Amino acid sequence: MHDSHSLLGGLFGDPVVDALFTDAARVQAMLDVEAALARAQVRCGVIPAAALAPIEAACQAGHYPLDALGQATALAGNPAIPLVKALTAQVRQHDPDAARWVHWGATSQDIIDSGAILQLRDALTRVEERLQVLCAALAGLADAERDTGLPGRTLLQQAVPVTFGLKAAGWLDALQRSQGRLQALRSDTLVLQFGGAAGTLASLQSRGLDVALALGDALDLPVPSLPWHTARDRIAELGSAFALLTGTLGKIATDIVLLMQSEVAEAFEPSGEGKGGSSAMPHKRNPVGCVAAIAAATRVPGLLSTLFAAMPQPHERAAGQWHAEWETVPEIVRLCAGSLAQVGVVVQGLQLDRPRMQAHLDSHGGLLYAEAVAVTLAGTLGKAAAHALVEEAARRALAESRHLRDVLQQMPEVAAQLPPAQLQALFAADSWRGMADTWIDRVLARG
Amino acid sequence: MHDSHSLLGGLFGDPVVDALFTDAARVQAMLDVEAALARAQVRCGVIPAAALAPIEAACQAGHYPLDALGQATALAGNPAIPLVKALTAQVRQHDPDAARWVHWGATSQDIIDSGAILQLRDALTRVEERLQVLCAALAGLADAERDTGLPGRTLLQQAVPVTFGLKAAGWLDALQRSQGRLQALRSDTLVLQFGGAAGTLASLQSRGLDVALALGDALDLPVPSLPWHTARDRIAELGSAFALLTGTLGKIATDIVLLMQSEVAEAFEPSGEGKGGSSAMPHKRNPVGCVAAIAAATRVPGLLSTLFAAMPQPHERAAGQWHAEWETVPEIVRLCAGSLAQVGVVVQGLQLDRPRMQAHLDSHGGLLYAEAVAVTLAGTLGKAAAHALVEEAARRALAESRHLRDVLQQMPEVAAQLPPAQLQALFAADSWRGMADTWIDRVLARG
Amino acid sequence: MHDSHSLLGGLFGDPVVDALFTDAARVQAMLDVEAALARAQVRCGVIPAAALAPIEAACQAGHYPLDALGQATALAGNPAIPLVKALTAQVRQHDPDAARWVHWGATSQDIIDSGAILQLRDALTRVEERLQVLCAALAGLADAERDTGLPGRTLLQQAVPVTFGLKAAGWLDALQRSQGRLQALRSDTLVLQFGGAAGTLASLQSRGLDVALALGDALDLPVPSLPWHTARDRIAELGSAFALLTGTLGKIATDIVLLMQSEVAEAFEPSGEGKGGSSAMPHKRNPVGCVAAIAAATRVPGLLSTLFAAMPQPHERAAGQWHAEWETVPEIVRLCAGSLAQVGVVVQGLQLDRPRMQAHLDSHGGLLYAEAVAVTLAGTLGKAAAHALVEEAARRALAESRHLRDVLQQMPEVAAQLPPAQLQALFAADSWRGMADTWIDRVLARG
Amino acid sequence: MHDSHSLLGGLFGDPVVDALFTDAARVQAMLDVEAALARAQVRCGVIPAAALAPIEAACQAGHYPLDALGQATALAGNPAIPLVKALTAQVRQHDPDAARWVHWGATSQDIIDSGAILQLRDALTRVEERLQVLCAALAGLADAERDTGLPGRTLLQQAVPVTFGLKAAGWLDALQRSQGRLQALRSDTLVLQFGGAAGTLASLQSRGLDVALALGDALDLPVPSLPWHTARDRIAELGSAFALLTGTLGKIATDIVLLMQSEVAEAFEPSGEGKGGSSAMPHKRNPVGCVAAIAAATRVPGLLSTLFAAMPQPHERAAGQWHAEWETVPEIVRLCAGSLAQVGVVVQGLQLDRPRMQAHLDSHGGLLYAEAVAVTLAGTLGKAAAHALVEEAARRALAESRHLRDVLQQMPEVAAQLPPAQLQALFAADSWRGMADTWIDRVLARG
Repeated sequence: MHDSHSLLGGLFGDPVVDALFTDAARVQAMLDVEAALARAQVRCGVIPAAALAPIEAACQAGHYPLDALGQATALAGNPAIPLVKALTAQVRQHDPDAARWVHWGATSQDIIDSGAILQLRDALTRVEERLQVLCAALAGLADAERDTGLPGRTLLQQAVPVTFGLKAAGWLDALQRSQGRLQALRSDTLVLQFGGAAGTLASLQSRGLDVALALGDALDLPVPSLPWHTARDRIAELGSAFALLTGTLGKIATDIVLLMQSEVAEAFEPSGEGKGGSSAMPHKRNPVGCVAAIAAATRVPGLLSTLFAAMPQPHERAAGQWHAEWETVPEIVRLCAGSLAQVGVVVQGLQLDRPRMQAHLDSHGGLLYAEAVAVTLAGTLGKAAAHALVEEAARRALAESRHLRDVLQQMPEVAAQLPPAQLQALFAADSWRGMADTWIDRVLARG
Repeated sequence: MHDSHSLLGGLFGDPVVDALFTDAARVQAMLDVEAALARAQVRCGVIPAAALAPIEAACQAGHYPLDALGQATALAGNPAIPLVKALTAQVRQHDPDAARWVHWGATSQDIIDSGAILQLRDALTRVEERLQVLCAALAGLADAERDTGLPGRTLLQQAVPVTFGLKAAGWLDALQRSQGRLQALRSDTLVLQFGGAAGTLASLQSRGLDVALALGDALDLPVPSLPWHTARDRIAELGSAFALLTGTLGKIATDIVLLMQSEVAEAFEPSGEGKGGSSAMPHKRNPVGCVAAIAAATRVPGLLSTLFAAMPQPHERAAGQWHAEWETVPEIVRLCAGSLAQVGVVVQGLQLDRPRMQAHLDSHGGLLYAEAVAVTLAGTLGKAAAHALVEEAARRALAESRHLRDVLQQMPEVAAQLPPAQLQALFAADSWRGMADTWIDRVLARG
Repeated sequence: MHDSHSLLGGLFGDPVVDALFTDAARVQAMLDVEAALARAQVRCGVIPAAALAPIEAACQAGHYPLDALGQATALAGNPAIPLVKALTAQVRQHDPDAARWVHWGATSQDIIDSGAILQLRDALTRVEERLQVLCAALAGLADAERDTGLPGRTLLQQAVPVTFGLKAAGWLDALQRSQGRLQALRSDTLVLQFGGAAGTLASLQSRGLDVALALGDALDLPVPSLPWHTARDRIAELGSAFALLTGTLGKIATDIVLLMQSEVAEAFEPSGEGKGGSSAMPHKRNPVGCVAAIAAATRVPGLLSTLFAAMPQPHERAAGQWHAEWETVPEIVRLCAGSLAQVGVVVQGLQLDRPRMQAHLDSHGGLLYAEAVAVTLAGTLGKAAAHALVEEAARRALAESRHLRDVLQQMPEVAAQLPPAQLQALFAADSWRGMADTWIDRVLARG
Repeated sequence: MHDSHSLLGGLFGDPVVDALFTDAARVQAMLDVEAALARAQVRCGVIPAAALAPIEAACQAGHYPLDALGQATALAGNPAIPLVKALTAQVRQHDPDAARWVHWGATSQDIIDSGAILQLRDALTRVEERLQVLCAALAGLADAERDTGLPGRTLLQQAVPVTFGLKAAGWLDALQRSQGRLQALRSDTLVLQFGGAAGTLASLQSRGLDVALALGDALDLPVPSLPWHTARDRIAELGSAFALLTGTLGKIATDIVLLMQSEVAEAFEPSGEGKGGSSAMPHKRNPVGCVAAIAAATRVPGLLSTLFAAMPQPHERAAGQWHAEWETVPEIVRLCAGSLAQVGVVVQGLQLDRPRMQAHLDSHGGLLYAEAVAVTLAGTLGKAAAHALVEEAARRALAESRHLRDVLQQMPEVAAQLPPAQLQALFAADSWRGMADTWIDRVLARG
């Protein structure tokens, strides 16, 4: 429905995923299910072998004008009813006998759900590929920027030093969990829907399971314990998996937008022709990619709530709740894929201003180091004395607008114990980075 | 974006509204703002009069291929930046001097927001027209079905009698409130956005307000106290107004779907060729229109929550939250309009099975009348005696599977007081409809 | 349910509102409705005058242990059923005759809804009072800080100058709209619920409307056109009104949190003993009040969506959807009131670092002034020349890390036209504030 | 916060879970983390062994009045800051040296998050136990009701026959998936939070990981790759898992409410003293338990969306988004547990009216059997003839208000082939249940 060539498609979507969710692709996916059904039923001996070729030949979306299907859908209540009618007519033109076996034993929802699963599986493949690339880029950053110190910020206040490598590892760690969730969808969620009118496959008599297995085989989809026409937890779970990824991408984008602020200016989206610039204000550099990712993270939670709100579907087929999923699921996946595309570009071209990060560490009188320095000094001076000294020095540094290091250097209690070089070393990364590298290693080991 | 000719467009949307929200319409609305801005600034003497004709001539969406705009939007972060660039180039081809005055003093968001307001105003007009028609149909039903009794149902259990006229009046009453809310949007919410780079209109020096007033005049939009680039309560309020209507339509659809159940079968959507039928199951009559309305009512709450979640927009321009509105607002309006179209058709063609409603009133031994009968009998027998009698009779009716009326008739205490005709009258609508007609009158008086 | 003395109550709630929504208050509100009903029915001659005193005497929440009511509620499905039973028993102890007239003609939902309306009306009063105080404080800020310049920031990038007075006026403008919405709730939304078992008031025969009007009078509540047991748009609209206020408060809090960032440090929440400090990190000043307001703005959209999702309530009484409102509505109001309390304190004690704001205006080589300077220079040099000059000067300022003013001063084309004092004046607020004061005046005029 | 003894607590909550989420329990959980931290640090030799006993002794919630903690929380911005202060003071009273080692190296969020994880783990245990019981009950129903036929209903219209065993199996199947998801939370989501001020554990120098591992050991919590102060996907995923269960319970409750309708009356919640009855309307039987489950399923989606909306948490500690989780997560778990408790009672005491189910199968002229009969007849008559015959018979049955079986019996083409007993058999379950038993077996095999 959303086309990457549309006005906002390039900003919010991903071209490959958008192509998977066009109307034409939706129709083709349903036709793929119909063709596979015929194949499976021929294989099981449920329908005559001669019916297969005419049915398969007719299962091309190009045969069915979307306009007419759309109009008929508005009357019928779902797109499978008119599609099956049109498909049957198309087959009948060439082989009236074969036309009798079109859609044999299936119900509209079997076709719509299984078709959607096929589309979602392809979209998942795309998302996994892009996510893999993003994770690789972050793994590189995590490793390369182990020594790049910058202020850790809590409640948007500078707190204590961290490294940019650690930030990247934190982003990566969450994305790795999303990789695991997406992978699990293939076995748990992207399963065949095939139950007939009310889930019993009664019209296939004793052959229901055989056909279901053969159809699962034909579509390379797992066959669930039973049909799930009104058990929609799989759909909501799938939505959650994409929403979790979108949320993590939104976190990354938020961090970068904050780092790009004029007053912080520690990291930047890659620049480029026509990219985020402002001719009127040459000092501005707009975070275009991150903005799209934040927009996605703002939109997906509401869309996801729709899938959960739609879960209580009555009896054997819903009256509106299922229909609420049709456009919502693709929209979640589209926004997730679009956000992933944008964050991918941003991270791969991320520009760091390392001197400015360092300068921020040393601003505010170097008080960001206070905790680390006290802990380190304790080894020499004893804990109580070390803390008392550093607290006193911090007070002075703040009052006199001096750097904590300089204040300490001029305190006789410190000077007596520590030559300047050793004191200086207390403010180096080795003194304050704690487990940063260990955490990075643990994340990289999982990748 | 969603086209009524698309696969699901006819089911979930409204063709007029869908046409208002295409990409081309979005671009034209922005160009309408640019043209009006030039007009207003010429009128105020801020730009030369000679610039107007070339700018107006270029403000036709047809000049600007959507593909190219879309690609540039993905880089620029919003569609106004490339559109203004393309518009300027277009003007320059014919009049280089005029090109200097394109978009004078405005910022992207002025154009995007004001353009969206124009689109929303047109959509509002359509929705108000359709709503007016639906209200008229319901007013007719409320008046015509004053004597059509059916079980009032609480927690989906038959409770006491109501009339179908009262049900229709209840639906109408809520829709009338929506009419009031929609009307209020025109003055309170659909207002001009015009503030320049950060809201001061500084580039227009002392003429900012004059131009704003002239621009409001040119677009027939109220001018707010100040620009609202990051004060988005109006947008969330507008979303709420459409969501409230969608919710009420969902309530109506829910009632009708429940009435259409095979076991209730008191009311039906209009039937028609290709409409909700099932060739395999001729006894089925699917509630297609109501299903679409329920789907909309299931989807809109999540979409609406996005608009509220996006309200905290930072400083003078948002970084993602505003962008989250762009597709969400039209989607809410589209689903509302689509639901309205569907419910309109359903209500106008609603088929009632009045004998079946009456039969349901008399099922369960006529116990639905117990409360009303006791209250009426109290006038003759005294309250305590009346209640005791009816309770006893109800118990017997339930135990012996007889009708409460027959049980009462054979109770000597009752027979002594009431000849059969009078007793019979206790079960007539006049005895149980209470304020139903009064409520109907009150609602119709407001219409 | 949430008590301001509870662990998180003081952070997220407001003590007055929390006291209005305790279980005891909920019970008392229902009893207030029962007492008023008896009064109204005596006045209408529907129940004996002698019944009034015993019923009124029993309508004290203290008579009814919450534990027992809670247990019975779990079985009965709503709290009014056991409360009416207990109330009747309590009246019966003193006056068996009077006990017969308890709850006469009413249904559980009449009592629960009308009781909730009473609670909400009191909460509304509190919120309006606090909002009035906040608006007054913002009006003061808007007026007092007309000359306090700081960078306007778009997409979190410094853009062009604005004044802090304008920021405050923008916040105030949105809050004034919320004042209007809250006021409208009193007439449109906070109305009586009274319809009896299924909305007809049949048990009151011809006296239903009279009693309803008398009851509305007794409770000082408007009487709606008809009962609204399953027409819940009023409730969702009420939720929207509080959610809109919460969203605007979240916007204000977001701005302040961003201004408090270590690297921006232009404005601060008031400090105080135990307030937002960090003993370990004396350089930190946590934005505690704003954090609570942002938390509320993050939570309320989801809660609001529940009210909209619950709108399609079936037939004459809901089966779960109404029940979904019971805790959700108070939670929205609580979070709104809590956010208002926090933002009220923050704004009233807001500390501004005006020199730092000014310094930010002059950072980045003074490029924030470029637009305003070019527009002003145009008066002297002509538009084309002015823009060309300023663009060239901006390029140099950026390249040479100098201030735009100094670069211009040394450009002979400029010096020839403008003596230093005049040039200097171009960088003063009068040159760049545009309509800022006008907008402020317009907002203050509405207050 | 919500107490099962509160007014609505028994209806919406579960007493065990409610007890786990009181303020006192929250404080105790945080203290449990502090005590375990001291234990772990003694074990690692990071703090003196002598500090342990005094710290452990002070880690009793009873020492700390909730009122005072609540007031201090409102100022400090989170409950851990005042709790640590009070804990330190408490330890100091008995052992000033030990007091220095309280909370060593930890940050507030370590304590709050890890404490919450402990509470959630206990709640999970309760939910899993109750879910196990419900699944066992459903497994029993699925197996026992294999032969209980009733109409399968699609879009709330009777469609084709299903069995009640199949319905129960469908419910069970979805619940089994929830069991799997809940179990996975223990390893993936319920993990230790321990990172110090900004995630580096710098104050523990080289011992950060050792202490983290020992702390994880002490609390029996997995230690994640790195701290997750602002990587909140685990929390949103946990919310999803409980929301998925709530949604499935809502689906079950929806089915039962629909089956309990006066006009359907095929299944009923267990009755009991004070349970869902209506003295005024003895024919009513309100679905109280299901109503609570539907209310939960209506509320949880909005609450869940809050957790996703809160995911983009800035830098190393959030400014409001984390705080939005604090009450939201327990509320989701509470509503899930409450719904589970209610549905558990309903399912375990579910009353079926099997004759009525059978009667519904035979209503509408037996057309529900048409599909199955045609398929079975095809074996004797050939497919084309069988379908034509049944279609003709269905038309007649509908037109003449006769049962399809009787119509067929009088059709000579049928009578010629099938003796009455064989014809009769076509309408028996063996002819129409298709894969129902196979699906049931597959689900039971997984249990």
